Amino acid sequence: MITFDTHPDRYRHWKLSFDGPVALLSLDVDEDGGLKPGYKLKLNSYDLGVDIELYDALQRIRFEHPETRSVVITSAKDRMFCAGANIYMLGTSSHAWKVNFCKFTNETRNGIEDSSRHSGLKFIAALNGTTAGGGYELALACDEIVLVDDRSSTVSLPEVPLLGVLPGTGGLTRVIDKRRVRRDLADVFCTTAEGVKGERAKQWRLVDEVVPPKDFMGHVMRRAGELAAASDRPADARGVALAPLERVVDDAGYHYRWVDVAVDREGRVAGLTVRAPAKEELPRDLDAILAQGAAWWPLAMARELDDAILMLRTNELDLGTLVVRTAGDVDAVLESDRILAAHAGNWFVRETIGMLRRTLARLDVSSRSLFAIVDEGSCFAGTLLELMLAADRSFMLLIEEEGADGAPEIAAGEANFGLYPMVNGRTRLATRFNDADGGDADGSGGEVERVRGRIGERLDAGAAAGLGLVTFTPDDIDWADEIRLAIEERSSLSPDALTGMEASLRFGGTETMETKIFGRLSAWQNWIFNRPNAVGERGALKLFGSGTRAQFDWERV
Amino acid sequence: MITFDTHPDRYRHWKLSFDGPVALLSLDVDEDGGLKPGYKLKLNSYDLGVDIELYDALQRIRFEHPETRSVVITSAKDRMFCAGANIYMLGTSSHAWKVNFCKFTNETRNGIEDSSRHSGLKFIAALNGTTAGGGYELALACDEIVLVDDRSSTVSLPEVPLLGVLPGTGGLTRVIDKRRVRRDLADVFCTTAEGVKGERAKQWRLVDEVVPPKDFMGHVMRRAGELAAASDRPADARGVALAPLERVVDDAGYHYRWVDVAVDREGRVAGLTVRAPAKEELPRDLDAILAQGAAWWPLAMARELDDAILMLRTNELDLGTLVVRTAGDVDAVLESDRILAAHAGNWFVRETIGMLRRTLARLDVSSRSLFAIVDEGSCFAGTLLELMLAADRSFMLLIEEEGADGAPEIAAGEANFGLYPMVNGRTRLATRFNDADGGDADGSGGEVERVRGRIGERLDAGAAAGLGLVTFTPDDIDWADEIRLAIEERSSLSPDALTGMEASLRFGGTETMETKIFGRLSAWQNWIFNRPNAVGERGALKLFGSGTRAQFDWERV
Repeated sequence: MITFDTHPDRYRHWKLSFDGPVALLSLDVDEDGGLKPGYKLKLNSYDLGVDIELYDALQRIRFEHPETRSVVITSAKDRMFCAGANIYMLGTSSHAWKVNFCKFTNETRNGIEDSSRHSGLKFIAALNGTTAGGGYELALACDEIVLVDDRSSTVSLPEVPLLGVLPGTGGLTRVIDKRRVRRDLADVFCTTAEGVKGERAKQWRLVDEVVPPKDFMGHVMRRAGELAAASDRPADARGVALAPLERVVDDAGYHYRWVDVAVDREGRVAGLTVRAPAKEELPRDLDAILAQGAAWWPLAMARELDDAILMLRTNELDLGTLVVRTAGDVDAVLESDRILAAHAGNWFVRETIGMLRRTLARLDVSSRSLFAIVDEGSCFAGTLLELMLAADRSFMLLIEEEGADGAPEIAAGEANFGLYPMVNGRTRLATRFNDADGGDADGSGGEVERVRGRIGERLDAGAAAGLGLVTFTPDDIDWADEIRLAIEERSSLSPDALTGMEASLRFGGTETMETKIFGRLSAWQNWIFNRPNAVGERGALKLFGSGTRAQFDWERV
Repeated sequence: MITFDTHPDRYRHWKLSFDGPVALLSLDVDEDGGLKPGYKLKLNSYDLGVDIELYDALQRIRFEHPETRSVVITSAKDRMFCAGANIYMLGTSSHAWKVNFCKFTNETRNGIEDSSRHSGLKFIAALNGTTAGGGYELALACDEIVLVDDRSSTVSLPEVPLLGVLPGTGGLTRVIDKRRVRRDLADVFCTTAEGVKGERAKQWRLVDEVVPPKDFMGHVMRRAGELAAASDRPADARGVALAPLERVVDDAGYHYRWVDVAVDREGRVAGLTVRAPAKEELPRDLDAILAQGAAWWPLAMARELDDAILMLRTNELDLGTLVVRTAGDVDAVLESDRILAAHAGNWFVRETIGMLRRTLARLDVSSRSLFAIVDEGSCFAGTLLELMLAADRSFMLLIEEEGADGAPEIAAGEANFGLYPMVNGRTRLATRFNDADGGDADGSGGEVERVRGRIGERLDAGAAAGLGLVTFTPDDIDWADEIRLAIEERSSLSPDALTGMEASLRFGGTETMETKIFGRLSAWQNWIFNRPNAVGERGALKLFGSGTRAQFDWERV
């Protein structure tokens, strides 16, 4: 079983140090420290284990080091920044492992950009040596790229010419849409195994600056200082320690404080339940929030949910349907959201919102069918309503008698109108209604606006259905059978077709770099990862390093 | 060898008739008329042959029937509109055939929307019976969808639940982004094999209107009349007959009047040469244009180019690199563009521009590497400069001596600034420079604007390189070797990786429904088309209709 737990004390591949407002994150891969046997992590190449540490380091910087305002990502090896994902690891991995590995690394790189955009953390890639493939893609996720001008160090994306696959962590998209490299130069760059160096790399916009070795770290640290100066992260705040998650794993599933995963292997279903806090557990003010620290419900719940998603993705490939429930007090969730919103200007609260935003985004791209079940005792409100809006469909128990006990209610909150944008840049509500123009054809305010008009109201099944917030509202006679049948039916469908369908239906409207990376680029990569030209016995990925040339089927498709 | 030639007199599957401004296009598939042996086209299902006729019919309507203002697409069968792409055809086809088939059908449906947007032709899908899969996707491409309310006829996308693949012609994208179906309802719709009928289909926005059988065609023809009334197509113009293309196919390639394809099977390269007209062949005024009709260079050249692309795609899978050349007089091309622009308001000229726009778009998504060669006697100017801008890279011969004979020149024209938008809605120039905001970071007008300032000027290799219009400018000593090496190198790379890379690099910036269909959706479909869950011996697509249930590998990827 793969877990995502680590701590700087246990890092084998990264060195994290702090110099005032600048954090230095140095890649120093232990070549014998691969997560699985069978390959050596030479030349600062990485596998999932290396990236788990990177993700952890970013979390530490976000939460434990509020004084950090810019991050320098560099290498502790001589003349070698990073050779990218380890090719022997890729060559010997299953299709699912490759896809999951790419997804996690993509999320971590998107997370770097997310922190740059939302949280006042700026990133500089200090390329002090050869930078290839995933190494360059890590640099592309940074705000600035500085390349050492030592007459030999290049940046490159050699995947197409050497391996017959695509750069798997957003390289093609970011070269075009972020770096705005001219289209034909991008074509040359992405087909040139040896890469581009020096002044030409700058002219082509592949890097921002090239600096001779003797001035290199001086330049980098000066720029890091300049970027730090523009940040609004606090100089004098105390960090919040990210205590290890308390997670119990047993045959029944994963159990955390606020999150529970019940595993049904025979049905190929995972039940995910998120619990709300009691009202009296809510902090009254900012001091109380900070005193609760990592135990504060929004953060603790987000960390647990994040971990549960990653664990399920990596360890439970056959569980294709995620049935999401909530348990607790609607009012407590709404009250928690009000506290969150009231202190959104505080660095720690802002980071907590960021963690929720990224965790919900992870759910959106999880290649699992998501069904939300709104039954007795549930609390899909505000932040937790996002779970229902992330679902492919939802079921809400309808109890016809007026004011009957046990009739579940949901509630929209301000949090649903912009706090947690999806990777397409739109709210889950807008995406749900495909309400691109913000209004209906008939001139009315549109479905999103109708929901906005009911913020804070408790909505029963009838009201929720009337607003279009729920898919099905069976009554208590049909309830259990209808849900059982729907889940069974879903679980009987082709998992591949569902993945492709969900990827197409979940992200309506505008596209962004992130949706292009998860949709267009990942889909092409998945295709290529299945083709004999890459992974067959004579495929390029399989044969890399063997001295034998790949043999291609030349058909262009 | 598959060709795309046909004529209404020879249609086996469609009936085309005209009633004033309304064209009636009725699907009446001859089940024994499959393009290949081995399947029967039952239930108005289609294969490439059926779609070749549809494409031809649309071309006839555009050019031969200027009086047509709206088109009703319906079925001549009883209670069956269309069952979609023939499943046995798909189940027995090669991967490449499936992908090419989907691409061509997608282009035809995008062409319907292109004509609606640009040419005053409106389309109504009159669903007079069961409408499944590709049948419903054809309807989705129309401006309005009317479904008969006979208590049994449904619309459906049964691909995911029945076949374990995706709807292959834009269905998922159009349901979300065009019809704006609510996300969870789209999920239910796309996983429900039996589909949705009657009032619910309308409530879910799947159709615009449901009409009882007795009023059905009356309603449809009334709406067709209303849509026709708003069109600016001329009532009294004479159509231009689309004479059959004169094409000679021999061992050396395909030879047309203006277009030539030289096939190098050993090198896996096709040389595509487009010739410009002589100045004296250009028409002086609109009457002369109309008198030339289908022989008018812009239209004749576009039709030949269109045919050449389709022939290469379908018949020459191993030719992975398309080397594009032009031959003729730069000034003649610019002069031809001026004539085109001067009469752009005329219906026939507008249709010709549309044909060029769609043909260039076909080149963009052709899954072939495109190299443009700008050598002596070439004429990449205006409309023909688009071929160079469509290329992944370009080579232009540099002759250092001032005013030397034979130094090639290119020229930008107004045509490059909006006449032929790509499917991403941007010009090829803007896409080339990834100049999303129309200006450079340094506050200057940006690279596109610098080119605009040089419209009409003849640019030699130095000037073209200075403006960023060309990738490489070898001199005559290096010229032949450099090009030969570049082509050989390209031809040695994995064809799959190149397809995925080019799909990612060619469409920077904004995404549209069309780019989503060609990128995101097609890539997922290609992946699924390669997975054992669909096409393995026990896959759903393979086993459909056999009575044996598919057996899936349940891993979610």
